[in-house]
Amino acid sequence: MIEDKSPLRTPLSQIGEFQLIEKLTKNLEIKQSSTIKAVGDDAAVLSFKDKRTVLSTDLLIEGVHFDLAYMPLKHLGYKAVVVNVSDICAMNARPTQITVSLAVSNRFPLEAVEELYEGIKIACKIYNIDIVGGDTTSSQKGLIISITVLGEVDHEDEIVYRSGACENDLLVVSGDLGSAYMGLQVLEREKQVFQVNTNSQPDLDAYTYLIERQLKPEARVDIKDILKQLEVKPTSMIDISDGLSSEIIHICKQSKKGCNLYEEKLPLDPQLISVCEEFNIDSTTVAINGGEDYELLFTIPIADFDKIKANPNFTVIGHIVPETEGIHLITRANTKIPLKARGWKAFDEE
Amino acid sequence: MIEDKSPLRTPLSQIGEFQLIEKLTKNLEIKQSSTIKAVGDDAAVLSFKDKRTVLSTDLLIEGVHFDLAYMPLKHLGYKAVVVNVSDICAMNARPTQITVSLAVSNRFPLEAVEELYEGIKIACKIYNIDIVGGDTTSSQKGLIISITVLGEVDHEDEIVYRSGACENDLLVVSGDLGSAYMGLQVLEREKQVFQVNTNSQPDLDAYTYLIERQLKPEARVDIKDILKQLEVKPTSMIDISDGLSSEIIHICKQSKKGCNLYEEKLPLDPQLISVCEEFNIDSTTVAINGGEDYELLFTIPIADFDKIKANPNFTVIGHIVPETEGIHLITRANTKIPLKARGWKAFDEE
Repeated sequence: MIEDKSPLRTPLSQIGEFQLIEKLTKNLEIKQSSTIKAVGDDAAVLSFKDKRTVLSTDLLIEGVHFDLAYMPLKHLGYKAVVVNVSDICAMNARPTQITVSLAVSNRFPLEAVEELYEGIKIACKIYNIDIVGGDTTSSQKGLIISITVLGEVDHEDEIVYRSGACENDLLVVSGDLGSAYMGLQVLEREKQVFQVNTNSQPDLDAYTYLIERQLKPEARVDIKDILKQLEVKPTSMIDISDGLSSEIIHICKQSKKGCNLYEEKLPLDPQLISVCEEFNIDSTTVAINGGEDYELLFTIPIADFDKIKANPNFTVIGHIVPETEGIHLITRANTKIPLKARGWKAFDEE
Repeated sequence: MIEDKSPLRTPLSQIGEFQLIEKLTKNLEIKQSSTIKAVGDDAAVLSFKDKRTVLSTDLLIEGVHFDLAYMPLKHLGYKAVVVNVSDICAMNARPTQITVSLAVSNRFPLEAVEELYEGIKIACKIYNIDIVGGDTTSSQKGLIISITVLGEVDHEDEIVYRSGACENDLLVVSGDLGSAYMGLQVLEREKQVFQVNTNSQPDLDAYTYLIERQLKPEARVDIKDILKQLEVKPTSMIDISDGLSSEIIHICKQSKKGCNLYEEKLPLDPQLISVCEEFNIDSTTVAINGGEDYELLFTIPIADFDKIKANPNFTVIGHIVPETEGIHLITRANTKIPLKARGWKAFDEE
């Protein structure tokens, strides 16, 4: 994949760390008023004044979190930013700055690192984020991306934690569920076909939405404003990176509540349903355990139902119950199954 | 080394990511008033009010930045924090919070990760820093540590950039130079002896200072206060991580100035001098190119010389000249040699 994209292959050893950083970070635009000094000193200087700052960080490892066999480097850079921005959205805040640290093995030429950084820059442009720092070094194996993101809110009471869900609150999700996971399954299958026959030309037309959800997810920076316009303040919020069930359990545990989730309410894209049939996988399982959707899951007072019910961005999928009642999926057949966190277990893979 | 330290070896796959994070981050103390919410949500929440925030990040890769053959995990955790704190000191700021991301291969049991984290926690206690977030995942190879550090200053004019050096300013360094590098040489030699004869018992008494400088460096958080008491404000400042010559060049380039550095002024520890003789290495070369000293290099107006001259923390090692005069080392024999950045080139190693 790297070979195909870059006719030029400049070994990183030819240019050294300082020159690489210079190449990657030249002409970085500064858009946020809170950025006083970005890249180029021992540290960035920021000024949030009377705003509150939120801060999150993610580490992405080749072979664990992504596979360059089907993930173009530019998309990977873009997604690495999105994954972090999503955490800021989950606090009901606005992203403002990131730092980008990269470790690359000598299998990557300069052009590959530049392509990755290009994706990072495009995401920063779209999400209106300043790149204010980072580190660049070699790795013993593969590509490692560590991004830290900062965000802000005007007033502290805008921040939404995981812990505020109340009894009878409605459980709401943005967008649809499971598509990113099925996109990954399609890509994994194509990779295997390609390994057997390197001349195969995949026809992926039937899977475009799913693949896009996997390769080019977007963070829901729009939700904060939509909710504000609707005059709804969530009582708790989290983003769906590890899978719906895992995130529901986080909210319930931290809010000391239980939850009923309704199978029939799960928002599924038509493409997801048909591909699940093709793969002979249960779409509910995918929607609940899939992960990487980067949608927002939140709870609102039941009194706010009328404000959101007509909004196409949101689906009510359940409600909060007392802690003693536990956390359950109510199936279409009206049976009650305990929800389990089947989120991505990073340490199972070895 | 891991085997010796931990009689217990719990595979990480037995506990999973969430439980690992829970184990590592339980009972984290919060000391900074700017920390509103630390670990446990999608993002940390911070409040710097009218203070300015500084932000820096470092990525440490096993086999590139450290060797666990002679670096105990607890020391490594400690040093990983120190390296980052040093960047905050170099802005003349106070460290306040860090995020800690770890990627570990399945060769590390839970107990090893806990030992590493213990070193991180000890450093945070000593430097009065809150751990406010992070990420934990598996790696394909080795240990990866990514730390982001935040710091603050009360007023923006306290911040010292690399770019403020003026003609005739004195070039000043804290502590002594080259010891961390020679400590590494001693440890490398012992590692090779040990590989030949695993029963060898090294006698390292003659090298304790150097080894401590390598294995347990400290960040100069004291310098900000010392300078304040002396009523000296540096015009430029940087920390010495990549080697003195490399850092001098950074200051000169960003300040658009030249510099004369005097060989005879370089502060060397007596142990460094004797070990350089033993290894038959030129101590000036070590002092200039060594790196990892985590001392501060700064410039002050010549009028402030009387304020700092009697202070044992500081040595005047040169002065700033016009850019056109270039950057030179003036040797003991009074010859002028152009200074070159021989700092650590991370991409040469493969």
